[in-house]
Order: sequence, then structure tokens, then C-alpha cells
Amino acid sequence: MSTYRTPKHVADRCWQELVKHQKNISRLHLKEMFKQDPGRAEKFSREFNKLYIDYSKHHITEETVSLLLSMAKSTDLSDAIKNIFSGAKINQTENNAAMHMALRAPADKHYFVDGRNVTELVHSELQHMQEFVELLHAGNVKGYTNKPIDTVINIGIGGSDLGPRLATYALSDFAVSSIQIHFVSNIDDRDINSAFEQSDPETTLFIISSKSFTTRETILNAETAVKWLKENGCHSLEKHLLAVTANHDAAKEFGVKDENIFHIWEWVGGRYSLWSAIGLPIAIRIGMEHFHDFLNGASTMDQHFCEQPLENNLPVILALIDIWYINFFHSQTHAIFPYDQALNMLPAYIGQLIMESNGKQIDNDGNKIEYNTSPVIWGDIGTNAQHAYFQLLHQGTPLVPVDFIISVTSSSENKNHHKELLANCLAQSEALMNGNTVSSKAPYKNIPGNRPSTTILLHELSPASLGSLLCLYEHRCFVQGHIWNIDSFDQWGVKLGKNLSKIISEELRQGKDNNVTHDSSTERLISYCLNKSESS
Amino acid sequence: MSTYRTPKHVADRCWQELVKHQKNISRLHLKEMFKQDPGRAEKFSREFNKLYIDYSKHHITEETVSLLLSMAKSTDLSDAIKNIFSGAKINQTENNAAMHMALRAPADKHYFVDGRNVTELVHSELQHMQEFVELLHAGNVKGYTNKPIDTVINIGIGGSDLGPRLATYALSDFAVSSIQIHFVSNIDDRDINSAFEQSDPETTLFIISSKSFTTRETILNAETAVKWLKENGCHSLEKHLLAVTANHDAAKEFGVKDENIFHIWEWVGGRYSLWSAIGLPIAIRIGMEHFHDFLNGASTMDQHFCEQPLENNLPVILALIDIWYINFFHSQTHAIFPYDQALNMLPAYIGQLIMESNGKQIDNDGNKIEYNTSPVIWGDIGTNAQHAYFQLLHQGTPLVPVDFIISVTSSSENKNHHKELLANCLAQSEALMNGNTVSSKAPYKNIPGNRPSTTILLHELSPASLGSLLCLYEHRCFVQGHIWNIDSFDQWGVKLGKNLSKIISEELRQGKDNNVTHDSSTERLISYCLNKSESS
Repeated sequence: MSTYRTPKHVADRCWQELVKHQKNISRLHLKEMFKQDPGRAEKFSREFNKLYIDYSKHHITEETVSLLLSMAKSTDLSDAIKNIFSGAKINQTENNAAMHMALRAPADKHYFVDGRNVTELVHSELQHMQEFVELLHAGNVKGYTNKPIDTVINIGIGGSDLGPRLATYALSDFAVSSIQIHFVSNIDDRDINSAFEQSDPETTLFIISSKSFTTRETILNAETAVKWLKENGCHSLEKHLLAVTANHDAAKEFGVKDENIFHIWEWVGGRYSLWSAIGLPIAIRIGMEHFHDFLNGASTMDQHFCEQPLENNLPVILALIDIWYINFFHSQTHAIFPYDQALNMLPAYIGQLIMESNGKQIDNDGNKIEYNTSPVIWGDIGTNAQHAYFQLLHQGTPLVPVDFIISVTSSSENKNHHKELLANCLAQSEALMNGNTVSSKAPYKNIPGNRPSTTILLHELSPASLGSLLCLYEHRCFVQGHIWNIDSFDQWGVKLGKNLSKIISEELRQGKDNNVTHDSSTERLISYCLNKSESS
Repeated sequence: MSTYRTPKHVADRCWQELVKHQKNISRLHLKEMFKQDPGRAEKFSREFNKLYIDYSKHHITEETVSLLLSMAKSTDLSDAIKNIFSGAKINQTENNAAMHMALRAPADKHYFVDGRNVTELVHSELQHMQEFVELLHAGNVKGYTNKPIDTVINIGIGGSDLGPRLATYALSDFAVSSIQIHFVSNIDDRDINSAFEQSDPETTLFIISSKSFTTRETILNAETAVKWLKENGCHSLEKHLLAVTANHDAAKEFGVKDENIFHIWEWVGGRYSLWSAIGLPIAIRIGMEHFHDFLNGASTMDQHFCEQPLENNLPVILALIDIWYINFFHSQTHAIFPYDQALNMLPAYIGQLIMESNGKQIDNDGNKIEYNTSPVIWGDIGTNAQHAYFQLLHQGTPLVPVDFIISVTSSSENKNHHKELLANCLAQSEALMNGNTVSSKAPYKNIPGNRPSTTILLHELSPASLGSLLCLYEHRCFVQGHIWNIDSFDQWGVKLGKNLSKIISEELRQGKDNNVTHDSSTERLISYCLNKSESS
């Protein structure tokens, strides 16, 4: 197997120029760049619909951007963008298209997979969602004692959890119903037990979300849900179960009635699925009209990504800046700080999106790569994060590029809080960039500055702006993966752990199986668990 | 100013030997190490009280451990450990001791700061907590309409939030009262409004936790709490306010009555304060008897750390392995995965502890250092994390050392869930270490393995085991900081952002102040916010 230090399809000349350029630019403090060029902020910021994106506080000049664009062009990025929208099977290792853009396309925008207009399938399923949500909101979905359902428990994990959980919470200002929604994902049953405690079996509906309908955590939790319903005297389980899956038969066998089975498709990856019926909890919370606004917000970003030349293309620009830090400054992390309590799940959501998509080391030609791919994505909400991790950003040693995200306006009546929130967010990007020298006698008080960040302002946190924002990250992730020449849509790395956990689970149930050989560490851990759980 | 590539007080010979040794050891796959030495797991694991710690799945041999210990000894680590317990002012930049060990010491174990036996102060405050908690649990703490308090809202941020929030939630199996506890920390008022929605002003008590009683977020939230109480007709504010602070006067001026002011001390850092009255929400949830178990759990680890020789000293061993990855393998991150829903705050808590303590680049002699200090700490609960980030761990490019944490037994009646949870946890460390080769024709399916992890088993998640666990991380963090020759107890890096946010906050209130000059990016961001919030 060959190994590659430069992505195979990048013109090596372009990559080497960036290596050289990095050495020059790293000598220049960001605050000097601002002094040298008064037009810098205008040059390196863009407005799109109701997003304002400032990427001027980065270690870039016009030359950097131009070199990055040349590098990107050498990989035929524009063709790759056309290719994904064409429905080509760009997920080569699983022989699938990555057609999540169809999930948010207007009905007259046709996308094709295997010659089939999938937009039509999507809109038929949206209609299905609409009918269900209307019935539910009208109190016409009823439990086994004929009381209207007033609580929904979403059982799903990974993509079937993070996306709907993020958006349902983020958009609670747009709620049109008082139906309680809980999310259960962990196989640790503290999770589902906590949801049970807050719910009444007579009026609770479970959404079982799993593309394969075999996800171990989800099926075990669904079985425990059924047990709970039965123990509480439920004699009509089918009134309390709903499934979102690509495996209709398995859902039906589990006891979900046909009209409660919502479909997703093989050409939708789990981490891109919140736009589909996996997003049902979102639609239940905010109603279908707002859900369509959410889809439209994403769809306008799709259009931007598909149509704009690379130099004006926001996902492209941001992805190239990511590449700049990861491959030329050797950053191993990237931080996401939404200054918004309602976006508390965003770092986790973006973390899954990028780390699962681009945490790869075999390229599309089967070669081992020796350049870095996905960084660790981490973060937390501001201002909390300031009081926990920002010390490291300001005075620590790793270089961490940061995304700050905040909405300009707030729905709150007390504007003081929001002004302070805004002030803190803007002050942090300024402080990270500028730093300051307090004292030569007390060097521990000095802040070096020169730390890069992007600031994304939303006019307001709305279904449309959230849709655009998430879609921006999706395509940014795609562009990164394209440059790295990897398959952003598979996830083979998680199979081995799943297989081994079945073996160990069996051993924990039956006692250690001497025909199975583990390393001595795993052996001892299993024995220790068996001994201690017996003695407890 | 000088710059240092090796910590100044480390014998350079020891450091260079580790550099050389790393080159040799990185050629050897972990699974080969296990094959070569059947006694490896036994050699590299330790039991302490009810913790079992396996660190055999690391890139270490006996030689590595010996070289790391020699390096540590060259810095007089044992003396440094004695020194912190002696109450010396090891937080040099703030001229303070770091005497959080006194917070959990038994009454007859005397610790001194400035010649004063602080254990006595601590126990007097513990008595104060006991009296209050008993009154509260008996329904004898009453609101302005004379109804018993049944809801507590803790207002605090950073150390005054993460610690109590973590432990209050983690130990809910040990709850002795049904008093509702909410945590508010963000200056975004969605946070406090959400707590208001779940509370009745007649029966709600606010704990205002701030060492300085000037923390902007906390004071603004406390003011909003007072406003809420007043708007709801509360005429006896003092019945609803409690403070934990080192600034008695400010709390009193805010309207907190003397007996409701709980004291903390200058020799307690915020991120080490959950053992003090900052932990009041924990004591309210689990009662004082369990709270003492929690303190004792930590105290036994203090004793271990203080007394054991370095080669048997768990915080020392784990810290040296951390250093091994950070300084010799150049890892920029470290992941924490508790396989326990109740420990969902642990990654954030440990993140603050380590990143705020050791995110530094000036050493104790005022020199700029050029070796790496604190990595980015990240993580999430298992099994959720498996479905979001583990792809990167298995097949991504950055080397991420992992801590797996799980309790062997579970309080749940349905043991199936817990067995699956255990199996998943153990399987992940096995898969990360071993990897596997599925196919030479489909290299994207292969898992390279060779990824390191520590597994920490708790017999059960209890006040005592949680106390020991958190204390283990505290001392591990201290040892790291000692080796790096930095002050782990200050946090000067966060001052600048605080100062700038006051300026920008004023501008957002009054309109842009043309006498204040920002960089063009920050200028435009402020103007954009002013324009858009006017037009909205």
C-alpha cells in the first residue's frame, strides 16, 4: 500500500507553496495584519441571507486565500460539488449517493438517485409527517385509554438523536404545541428511566429512530419501553409506537403499525438525517410550517454552495481555512462556542458531523495517508465556557481555531442579559486576536494574542437561520473531505467495537468464555467485573 | 525573557532519554507488547479502595515508567507534594496557598495556612452547612408566605457551577430529599428563565455562589432573581437568598442575611471548591452524612497521594503517562468517556480542572516555555459518544489518549442495560488497542489499533468513589503542572476578555464610542449588532 503525505489529487506544487507561505505568515502577528490593512475586515467577511460571517481574524492574507483556492482548484473541487448534487455514488465504500440535499429541496427541484426523482419521495414523506403532526396537535393521536398523546419520547442514538435533540431545543421559541418531548439515547437505563419518571404511559408515544432498525442501544431501549407500557397495563402497544427507519419490515415486526412507520433512505447518512422524518420531534415542537422554514434555510445554503464560484462560496472558504490550520499549522482541535443557551447541543452535533465524516486515514484510492484529517471538535456554550476552558485558549500552548456563533437579537424581554452576552462574545474574539502586554515584571499576566477565530452572527435564532447554519457546516465538512481525498460518508471504524461488545456482553452474562481470547488487560477487566458484580 | 524547550527544573538528560525512548517504543504495536509480556496487565494496574485502574493499554514498558519516574524525581516531585500539603504559597502569582485538601480533612488532621489551623475553619463551616441542611430537609426554611422551601436554584459559573452540578446529578441515587435543584450559570437569560418556569417564587431559595461576589454573570443573574421575586410579590427577600462567598460584606449588602452567608477562603481555587460550601447543593440532595462520605473518599486519595512512593502513587503514574503523550507524542487532546449517564458533566468538569489549571505558557520563573502544557480535554458519555466521535478515535489521524470510566455495578433493576454498557466500554478499549485487519482489498475497513487508553472501574458510583475519583484528577493535574514548572492555581488568561467585554457592553448600550478603538473586525461586528438590533 502506498502512503501519501499530500492528498493524491492535490497538485503538489500548490501544497508546497502553502507550506512555504505558512512559514512566512506565522511570523506576523494578527494585530499587525489589521494595522497594515484597514480594509481587512471588509475583505474577509461575507453576508448571506441573515448570516454575517467574519473570518478576518485568521492567519490569512489575500495571498493565502489565493493559494488555498489554487490548491482547491487543482483537485477539481467545482466538479466534485456538481457531482454530489448529481446523485453520483460518492460514498464509494458503501456504494451510495449522499443526497441529503434532496431532503430540503422544494418540490420542483428534482434530484435523482439511480434515475429516480427522490425529491418526490421526500415530499410524499413530508406530507406523511404533516398529517401525523396535525393529528397529534389536534389531540387526535390517542393512547390505549383513549386519552390524547401529550408526551413523545424519541429513542435513537448518534444521528437519530443529536440532530433532532439540537433543533428541538434550539427552536423552542417557535414552539406551537405544549407536547413534552424527551430524548433517550444511552444504553445506560438511567437515561430511559429518567424519561419514564416524567411521563404517563397512557399518553406517551415512543418514536423509535434507527435507519437499520438494528442499532443495539435503540432496540434495547425500545424493548424496555414496551416492557414499561405493558407493565402499566397497555393492551394496545401499536398506539404508542412510531418508527423512523429504512427497514420497514423490522419495524412492523416490532409492532409498529404501517401508518406509523416513516421512511428514510439509504442515500441519507445518519449524521445528515435531521432534515428527514428523523426530524419528527422538531416538527412536533415547532409545527410543519416552521419545519419547512428550517428546510428552506438549508436549501438556500445548498443553492449558494452549488452555484457560487469558489472564491465567494462560504462553505468552501471556511473549509479551506480549516485545512490551513489542520495541515499547515498542525492544529489537532477546532472549537465551537455558541453564545446561546439554546444551542447547547451544537458542539456535539458538529462534533459528530465532522469527526465521524472525516476521521479517516485511508484515501479514496485505498492508500494510507500521512497528512492529518479531522481535528477533534470540542466546545461548549458561552459564557459558561469562558469560566472553564478559555484560560487555555488565551495562555495555553495548543493553537485552537475557534468558531463563535451568536444571534444579534434575542426573544427575551430583559435586553441586559443579551447585551452582556453579545459583549462577551465579541470581546473574546478581540482578546484572543489582540492579546495584551500588562507587565514585563509579571509575564504571567501577559496574553500573547494571535489566536484565530471566525465569528458567525445570526440576525436571530430561527428555523431558517439554524437551517442555513447547519447546512453551512455540512458542506464545509464535505469540502474538507474532498480535499483530503477521503470518503466522508462511511464509518467503518465503529464496526469492530460493536462486534467485540457482543462477545464481551455474552461473557458478562454467561461467565468468562475460555474459548475467547482477549489481551491480558481485557481478560482481567472482564474477570474483575464478573467477580465484583457477583459479590455485590 | 528566556525560552525553554525542556522544563527548567527537569534534568535535561532525563528528558532527552525519553525523547530517544519514544522513537523506539513508537515502533512497537501495543498488541505486540501484550503478546511479549503475559504479565503486562497485572504489572500496569492498581487497586485503590474501590477503584481499579488499568493503565496497561498504553505505549509504555517498565523502562518507560522507570524513565518517567527518573525525570519526575529530577524535579523533586516528592518535595513538591510535601510542599502543597504544608500550606506553602505555591500559587505564587497570587501569593496564595492551594489548600483544598483541608476542605475534606477529618477534624483531627490539621492543615495550616499562615499559621492558622484551617481544618478548624472548615469544620465550623461544615457544621453551619449541617444545621442549614437539616432545617431545610425538615421543612423549616420558609419563604415569604411561610411555605417551606422546596426548590433551590444555584446561581454560579465555572467552579461555582460545574462541581456542584456534576456531583448533585451523579449522586442522585443517594438523594435523601425531594427538594428540586436547578443550576443557572449562563448570562444568556434563557438559562434562568428556564429555571423560573419550573419554580414557584414562594418556595424557591437562590444560592448565589461567587468567591469574589463580583462575577458578572452571577451578579446579573442574582439581580434578575431578585427582580423575579419582587415581581411575584416577595416582601422578604432575605428568606430567599443564600450566598457562598469569601466576600461577606458584598453578600450582606446584596441582601443576604448573616446566617445565610457561607464562607469560602482565598486558599481555595474555584475549580477546587466543590468540597466547600460551594457544594451545598450536593449536601442538600444527598444529606450531610453522604456529603461526609464524599469528602472522605477524597481524603483517602489525599492520603494516598501524600504518602505513597512515586512508583505506587496513582495520581503520579497517571500524570506521567499524560506527560508522555503530550510532550513526547505531541498529543494535543485527551478524552474522557464516562460510561454512565449520571456522569454526563464529568468531561466538562475535568476539562475545567485541567485546562484552566495547566493551560499556561509562562513558567514559575517567568520564562516563556516552548514545550506543550495542558491538552484540550474533551469527551462525552458512552455509549452515546461511540455513535458520534469514535470513528475518529479508531480510524482518524490524531493520537488521542482516552480515559474510560465505568462502575461495575448498577443500581438499576434491569441488569441487561448495565451489562451492555460494561461490554461496550471494555470492547472499545480492546478495539482501540488491538485494531483488526479485515481485508487487503478494502483497506478502509481495517482498524489500525495501537490507540492508548486507561480504564478506571468503580465498584459502584457512590459518594466515596466519586470523591476519590475527582481527587485523583486534582492531584494528577497538580503533578502535570509541577513537571511543567507552571502555576496550576492562577488564571490570569481570562482577565483581558472580562475587561474588554465591559467596554463593548457599554458601547452596545450607548451606541459606538468613537473614542474607543478596536480592530476593524471588532468595529464592524459591533456596528453590525447595533444596526441589526435597532432595526429588529
